[in-house]
Amino acid sequence: MTEHHKPSIAEAQALAEATRDAMFSRDRAAQALGIKIVAIRPGYALLTMVVRSDMVNGHHICHGGMIFSLADTAFAYSCNSYNRATVASACHIDFLAPGKEGATLSAEAIEQSLSGRTGVYDVTVKDDSGKTLALFRGKSYRINGEVIAGLEQADHA
Amino acid sequence: MTEHHKPSIAEAQALAEATRDAMFSRDRAAQALGIKIVAIRPGYALLTMVVRSDMVNGHHICHGGMIFSLADTAFAYSCNSYNRATVASACHIDFLAPGKEGATLSAEAIEQSLSGRTGVYDVTVKDDSGKTLALFRGKSYRINGEVIAGLEQADHA
Amino acid sequence: MTEHHKPSIAEAQALAEATRDAMFSRDRAAQALGIKIVAIRPGYALLTMVVRSDMVNGHHICHGGMIFSLADTAFAYSCNSYNRATVASACHIDFLAPGKEGATLSAEAIEQSLSGRTGVYDVTVKDDSGKTLALFRGKSYRINGEVIAGLEQADHA
Amino acid sequence: MTEHHKPSIAEAQALAEATRDAMFSRDRAAQALGIKIVAIRPGYALLTMVVRSDMVNGHHICHGGMIFSLADTAFAYSCNSYNRATVASACHIDFLAPGKEGATLSAEAIEQSLSGRTGVYDVTVKDDSGKTLALFRGKSYRINGEVIAGLEQADHA
Repeated sequence: MTEHHKPSIAEAQALAEATRDAMFSRDRAAQALGIKIVAIRPGYALLTMVVRSDMVNGHHICHGGMIFSLADTAFAYSCNSYNRATVASACHIDFLAPGKEGATLSAEAIEQSLSGRTGVYDVTVKDDSGKTLALFRGKSYRINGEVIAGLEQADHA
Repeated sequence: MTEHHKPSIAEAQALAEATRDAMFSRDRAAQALGIKIVAIRPGYALLTMVVRSDMVNGHHICHGGMIFSLADTAFAYSCNSYNRATVASACHIDFLAPGKEGATLSAEAIEQSLSGRTGVYDVTVKDDSGKTLALFRGKSYRINGEVIAGLEQADHA
Repeated sequence: MTEHHKPSIAEAQALAEATRDAMFSRDRAAQALGIKIVAIRPGYALLTMVVRSDMVNGHHICHGGMIFSLADTAFAYSCNSYNRATVASACHIDFLAPGKEGATLSAEAIEQSLSGRTGVYDVTVKDDSGKTLALFRGKSYRINGEVIAGLEQADHA
Repeated sequence: MTEHHKPSIAEAQALAEATRDAMFSRDRAAQALGIKIVAIRPGYALLTMVVRSDMVNGHHICHGGMIFSLADTAFAYSCNSYNRATVASACHIDFLAPGKEGATLSAEAIEQSLSGRTGVYDVTVKDDSGKTLALFRGKSYRINGEVIAGLEQADHA
C-alpha cells in the first residue's frame, strides 16, 4: 500500500475483516475441516478446530496433517489480512504433544516480520487444556492480485 | 530389532505390508482424505490423493494443509514400516507450485537416515504431469510399542 | 530436576551464570568468533558479535554461516542454562536482511517450550540499527551429563 | 538465461568453474574456515573442511555453526554456479551425529529444484569415516546481478 494513503487503524481492521469473509466464503478446505475464524486483525488470526473422529491417524491421535492444516490456515488468514494475495512458500512445524479426539484446538498466528513481498509468521497450536501441541513457522510470499478482487481499485478510484 | 534375528528381505517386506494394513485400517484421517497406499517397502512409501473440491482454499488452489497431509502420511507409512511405533517430531515443507482441483497427487517418501530412535525422511509431492509441487522433510522419533500390537512377541515366542 | 528440590529464582540464576562460565571457558569456537555473552538467565541468552572482515562472503555481506553461528550459540547458552548437557537436534533459519562488515550483531534466545528432554528456542538476530537480520528456531535434546561435571552430585550430596 | 542461447555442457561447466573462482577469491569467510572447493558443476558443489581446534564448542565437539557454515557454503557455490547472484532465503539443518576435532568433513550440495528465482538444494555433511553428521536443505533466491560482474554482457555483446 506504499502508493496509497496509509489506512487508519479502523480502516485496517475493517479491511482485515472483509478479507477474512471473502477468503472464508470460498475456502472449502477450511470449511470442510470445521475451522472457525475466532479473531482477525492485521497480521493476526485466532482459529479453532475440533478433532473429529475422521481426523485421527493409525496411532489413535490427531493426524499431524490436521494440526498442520489448522496452523497453516491461521497463517494464511493472518498474512492475507491486508487484502494482498499471499501464499505460503515454506513452513516448519515442531510437534510437541499429541492431540486427542474430541479436543478443541486453537491456533494463534502472529506476524514476526513483513518486508517487501516476504513475511514470517509464528503459529502456536494448543488444546483446550492450554497445552501447546505444536509450534509452526511459515514464510509467506505476496503474489500479484488481491483477495477481494477489485476492492482496491474501487477504493482508490 | 537389535535383540532379535535380522529379518530377511522377504520377511522385512512382509512386515512392512502387514504394518501398512494394520495402520491403514485405523487411519481414519488418511481414509477420509481418499489417500491410497500405492507401494510400501521398508523405509519407503508411495501414496496418491486426488485434490477434491473440498480441498481447495480461498485462493482456488489445493490447501497447503492437504498437500502437507499427503506428504506427512507418506512419511508416517515409511517410518513405521518396521512395525516400531514412530511419530513425527518435526516437519519442514517447501511449496514450489500450486496443486489444481481434480489433479492426482503422488507423494514418495524415502528414508535418508535412521539411527537410534531418530530418522529423517524426504518426501516429494508431484502432480499427474510430473511437476514437483512440494518438498517435505520429516524427522521421526520412535516411541515405545509396535504398530501391530503383540506381533513381535508372538513372532518370537 | 524432578528428583531434586526446585531451585529458588536466585539459585537458578546463579546456576545459569556458572554454567555459562564453564561452557564459555572451553568454547573455543565462540571465542574465535569474538562472541560475547551479554546476558544469561534460565532459558534465555543475549549475545553479540562484530562482523569482522574474515566473516564476509563472496557477495560482500556477512556469511550466512556466521549469522547462524551467532544464533546457534545463543541457542546453546539458553538451553544449557540449567546445567543439563543439551545439544541441537535441528535448526531452522530465515534470512531477512544482509549483515554488513563492521556491524555489531545481537542474538536474543528465548525458550518457547521445554518438556522432557526436548525444547524449542527462538532466536532473533538484529544489527546495531535494530533491523532484524534473521529468525532462528532450534530444537534441543538433552543428553546425559552436566555442563559443569560433578556440580549436581556435589550440590545434592 | 532464457533470453540467450542455451549454453552447451562444456560452456555451463566452464561458467561454473569461473564463477567458483570469482566467488572464492573474495569469500574471506570460506577462506578463514579453511574450506576447499573440491568439485563444482552446474547446480552441484563438493567441499571439505577440517575441524580445527578453534571450531570446537563447550561440549568438546564441532560447533554446530561450523557444520552449518560448511553446508551453507556448499549450498552457496552450487546455487551460484550459473553466474546469477543468488542468496539463501532460509535453511534447515538436522544434526545427526557429532563431529570430532581433526576430522575432515565433506559437504555435497545437490540441486533439487530450480524454478523462476527460487531453488531448493540439499547438502549432506559427512565425516572422513563416511558417517553422515548433518542433513541441510537450503532455499535460494536469485537477486539481480551476476557473480562475475560484466561477464554476461561481454559474453553476449
